Amino acid sequence: MYSFKNDYSEGAHPQILKALMESNLVQEDGYGEDQYTLKAIELIKEKVGRTDVDVHLLTGGTQTNLTAISAFLRPHEAAISASTGHILGHETGAIEATGHKVLSVDCKDGKLTPDGVKAVLEGHPDEHMVKPKLVYISNSTEIGSIYKKEELKKLGGFCRENNLILYMDGARLGSALCSDENDLQLNDLPELVDAFYIGGTKNGALLGEALVICRDSLKADFRYHMKQKGAMLAKGRLLGIQFFELFRDNLFFDLAEHANRMAGMLREALIQAKVQFLTHSPSNQIFPIFPNSLIAELEKKYSFHVWEKVDADYSSIRLVTSWATKEEAVEGFIEELKKWM
Amino acid sequence: MYSFKNDYSEGAHPQILKALMESNLVQEDGYGEDQYTLKAIELIKEKVGRTDVDVHLLTGGTQTNLTAISAFLRPHEAAISASTGHILGHETGAIEATGHKVLSVDCKDGKLTPDGVKAVLEGHPDEHMVKPKLVYISNSTEIGSIYKKEELKKLGGFCRENNLILYMDGARLGSALCSDENDLQLNDLPELVDAFYIGGTKNGALLGEALVICRDSLKADFRYHMKQKGAMLAKGRLLGIQFFELFRDNLFFDLAEHANRMAGMLREALIQAKVQFLTHSPSNQIFPIFPNSLIAELEKKYSFHVWEKVDADYSSIRLVTSWATKEEAVEGFIEELKKWM
Amino acid sequence: MYSFKNDYSEGAHPQILKALMESNLVQEDGYGEDQYTLKAIELIKEKVGRTDVDVHLLTGGTQTNLTAISAFLRPHEAAISASTGHILGHETGAIEATGHKVLSVDCKDGKLTPDGVKAVLEGHPDEHMVKPKLVYISNSTEIGSIYKKEELKKLGGFCRENNLILYMDGARLGSALCSDENDLQLNDLPELVDAFYIGGTKNGALLGEALVICRDSLKADFRYHMKQKGAMLAKGRLLGIQFFELFRDNLFFDLAEHANRMAGMLREALIQAKVQFLTHSPSNQIFPIFPNSLIAELEKKYSFHVWEKVDADYSSIRLVTSWATKEEAVEGFIEELKKWM
Amino acid sequence: MYSFKNDYSEGAHPQILKALMESNLVQEDGYGEDQYTLKAIELIKEKVGRTDVDVHLLTGGTQTNLTAISAFLRPHEAAISASTGHILGHETGAIEATGHKVLSVDCKDGKLTPDGVKAVLEGHPDEHMVKPKLVYISNSTEIGSIYKKEELKKLGGFCRENNLILYMDGARLGSALCSDENDLQLNDLPELVDAFYIGGTKNGALLGEALVICRDSLKADFRYHMKQKGAMLAKGRLLGIQFFELFRDNLFFDLAEHANRMAGMLREALIQAKVQFLTHSPSNQIFPIFPNSLIAELEKKYSFHVWEKVDADYSSIRLVTSWATKEEAVEGFIEELKKWM
Repeated sequence: MYSFKNDYSEGAHPQILKALMESNLVQEDGYGEDQYTLKAIELIKEKVGRTDVDVHLLTGGTQTNLTAISAFLRPHEAAISASTGHILGHETGAIEATGHKVLSVDCKDGKLTPDGVKAVLEGHPDEHMVKPKLVYISNSTEIGSIYKKEELKKLGGFCRENNLILYMDGARLGSALCSDENDLQLNDLPELVDAFYIGGTKNGALLGEALVICRDSLKADFRYHMKQKGAMLAKGRLLGIQFFELFRDNLFFDLAEHANRMAGMLREALIQAKVQFLTHSPSNQIFPIFPNSLIAELEKKYSFHVWEKVDADYSSIRLVTSWATKEEAVEGFIEELKKWM
Repeated sequence: MYSFKNDYSEGAHPQILKALMESNLVQEDGYGEDQYTLKAIELIKEKVGRTDVDVHLLTGGTQTNLTAISAFLRPHEAAISASTGHILGHETGAIEATGHKVLSVDCKDGKLTPDGVKAVLEGHPDEHMVKPKLVYISNSTEIGSIYKKEELKKLGGFCRENNLILYMDGARLGSALCSDENDLQLNDLPELVDAFYIGGTKNGALLGEALVICRDSLKADFRYHMKQKGAMLAKGRLLGIQFFELFRDNLFFDLAEHANRMAGMLREALIQAKVQFLTHSPSNQIFPIFPNSLIAELEKKYSFHVWEKVDADYSSIRLVTSWATKEEAVEGFIEELKKWM
Repeated sequence: MYSFKNDYSEGAHPQILKALMESNLVQEDGYGEDQYTLKAIELIKEKVGRTDVDVHLLTGGTQTNLTAISAFLRPHEAAISASTGHILGHETGAIEATGHKVLSVDCKDGKLTPDGVKAVLEGHPDEHMVKPKLVYISNSTEIGSIYKKEELKKLGGFCRENNLILYMDGARLGSALCSDENDLQLNDLPELVDAFYIGGTKNGALLGEALVICRDSLKADFRYHMKQKGAMLAKGRLLGIQFFELFRDNLFFDLAEHANRMAGMLREALIQAKVQFLTHSPSNQIFPIFPNSLIAELEKKYSFHVWEKVDADYSSIRLVTSWATKEEAVEGFIEELKKWM
Repeated sequence: MYSFKNDYSEGAHPQILKALMESNLVQEDGYGEDQYTLKAIELIKEKVGRTDVDVHLLTGGTQTNLTAISAFLRPHEAAISASTGHILGHETGAIEATGHKVLSVDCKDGKLTPDGVKAVLEGHPDEHMVKPKLVYISNSTEIGSIYKKEELKKLGGFCRENNLILYMDGARLGSALCSDENDLQLNDLPELVDAFYIGGTKNGALLGEALVICRDSLKADFRYHMKQKGAMLAKGRLLGIQFFELFRDNLFFDLAEHANRMAGMLREALIQAKVQFLTHSPSNQIFPIFPNSLIAELEKKYSFHVWEKVDADYSSIRLVTSWATKEEAVEGFIEELKKWM
């Protein structure tokens, strides 16, 4: 049984484990004040092209989202999310648990647009309703689509004009930035969004997300929020070492490129086999539509999520590749498919 | 510069890292549903002597405390803590951030007694005040003292009579259970308290605390609370593998014993040198009182916390040992001390 | 300018003010422990036909909703509401501010059905999502529709089978129960729902809502929640006296009947004039659809809410009547209409 | 049985009820946008001597405290209160329920000083602890003492230097300002504190507190917070009419002076009878110390709180007078006392 279920099925890239081993007995200060974390933060600032951003290392996506969003908002302010947004339906109400409503915008491709956000603003004119304040986007999105530079520019411009905070969930930012269709660079982001995070967990780390706060007014006292939300590790070095390895050379991007290449092989084979897709997803998640009978066959040998019923006979499944996906496993899956189509 | 600052200055015990390496490329389910976590949970149930407890693995102490306490209490209910309690003054209001007051009981030795808790109950008779509901204790305490079995029996009995939840923070439970003065065993705990956690971070793990919920009424839906508070790792295996190693043989206790032995060497040498202590602490934290001039000298070669001013000329410092503390470093510290006393 | 804007434009029914005057200098205990409140609670228990319910008097609808719902739910649990529900879009995220998500079900007529709730349950299968637990309904609804007894029976049955709490917002319960189409009685409610409130503010009181908790497991410590949320008046007598007057004889129902009769006169005249309505609303709120030009004319003499754009030329308006609406004002409005149609 | 239990035993001053009667059938907008509220706000701005403050009318003290403090603070920030402070021990954790810790300063006379606040700041140096941000004081205090102008100047200066918010709970501000020992005027307050409220409930209104926000940075969007916390009455006129009456002429001060004069009569008689007091309280609450046997006798004819055990034989009681306290009742109490002393 091989798993295409997600991009966190394996441990960490061996280079990361090696770095953990080598540094293991060095004594360091706790709570993210160790030398590895400080160096990782410097590296990340360099890679995003701005020394004036603040960078913090946290352990997971839900934790990063809830800590950041609750730090950025006042009690009556709300977040806006695409209807597919992770904070909306897949984090057990973590944002609401910090007191804030998440407003949904229906969108087919998982991406928010100025028009969608504008409609929310118009529907919330006064103090009898929450005040929409933070726009939450994911790149790549929960359904594998990615934002183009021009789209982000327009959305960011709209947010600035309307005094909204633009926050990007980058759980799969590596895959987005390494997509064939991508025209963004990591160092474009501080100009385009107010805060974002660079996902480590889904791109080769044991755990870890690097939050980058670009807008000055959002920076103050962030470490207090981390501590209060249980997001400050005693052995912060565990995060620092990993992000240092990911960004020391090009490992972060190499791993994402591998994941994308594996997804690309699958996509290509499916296209050739005339398979339809639920959505256009040029990243490491793809959503082919199969007959239910075929899905049942595939499930005997492969592990994956059945994503959505399409009609009585067809459903889409989600195939996710990662830094650890083996080329022979992809080839095997393609061979398997050919038997049935 | 050698550090006696805390018990989380180094990485993890090599056996744990080795286990991470060996399992690295095995594919597993996420979110704590992997085989390693399931096996670790079984092992822990076995070690605590009860198959009917629920066990959950979280990443750190503040996170475990806030997730458990907010899951256990209704909105108007409060926790009671010794004035030295970690949740009271060292977790950035994490419990209050989930909506609950923490009531303080002054106590010199860091330990709560039925009398102390009773006084709080008497001071909170009606609905104009919070309703005290959960008694928070730490073992070992924040100042190194430990609970004896008889003390826990009395406190637990009082809690049951008064319908209070007794919760034990076990960030340093290993050191407590391996103390020379200890008469508790891990498998005594489910009879004595309603929930407790077994600290991994401060006893040889990279990170990780194992929460054990003993009382049936506290168990329901706990994984929802973990997810909501950002306490559920995508790669839950990282915690499972570590706790499996800690409890597979006797590693958890071996490491704590080493830490205690190192503290014992320091304690013994200080006693012989007629040094006074701030408090009686038979575990891996000791608090000798030194002249400020001596502290200044020691700080040139050693890293530690200056804990409390005792008078104009004297202060207590905190020396913490761990699984990783080197015997020669302890000997060196003792030699250094002898030069000055 | 006469207002049909809402049912809280005037003060209180004169009989209520008279009772306030007459009792004014009697000394009473505070915080709802006065004789008037105790008597009002007894009266309400009698009227709802059950002595085993708990009754609490609060000041307004949002306050009652947030205090009750946050008392009833655990942190990971969510409320389900019709898309028109007051808690969803018109209470500034009051429920979310207590930590709970509100899940929306699209429905044209403002009423939830078992099917709608079932779909939400099916969409929330595991701990990565909130756990739907409380079903929030309003009667009459925010768009003037009312629940029939059979509908409530089915919904209540579904809730019991699925271990859900059924909570009814009765801000306009008087108008619902006095509707021509109604087949419910006040004393049917404890069998049908787990908790509900009887609205005073919109039916002749200066302020005040009487929360009735029917299900035993929801009763404990409710006064703590009231105090904590700022919902316990020092001079609780102010609420007790009013509810005593409303239920001493038949005042509560007399006032609602008047409001409905006034709405009925408007509805009848509009039907005769072939005006269309946005929705079927047999209570004290009606939503006729007018040409925008006519609305502009009416706004010169009458105050009301423009509810919703219907198409380029037409919009619906909301006309609300109350205990204080004057028959001659209604006649005047009808005359005015006739001029333009 | 006559009650000296509190200053909210009766209804409202007759002039206030009269105003409610006379305005009863005037149609007004809801939610505090009525003409009475707008006029009351203008009057209050005039009386506090500043047109640039924001004024909001809320229903009670706990509600005002929790709405204001949660609006003013970010999640990691805490309030500082005297150990006698109402928010600390008598509001069922209302502030903690909004997420914020309340830090206590022991003080005998109920009043905070710069030294007391400074000690809290020094004890909270970093992100492992909450960040003290708001200083909560009451005037008069919960034990009847009052702040002198010079004391407030020093405390306010300290707060400004340390970037702290100074917030005054004025539940009994009338009594404080009308004390014989007072040297403050209502229009001094905007210079001295950042926000305060003027208590109506305990000074002749049915209910109502007028929050005055002086510091610009605290003003934004306050009505959102009111709505979210259930603190915005549909019939806001009920508050507006009352505050208009209280401040139209001198009623607010006349009522407080009466209450103080009644307390003064009691105090004077007690002093002559050589009775000791628990604390110096030149306002409408006094705390004489009596033998327990005398207290038992008094309880047969009078209602009051037994405040605190002083020793085995003596306790202090709390006597509270109000706008409604009758001179003959005070004389009767004094006569009764004489019988026993």
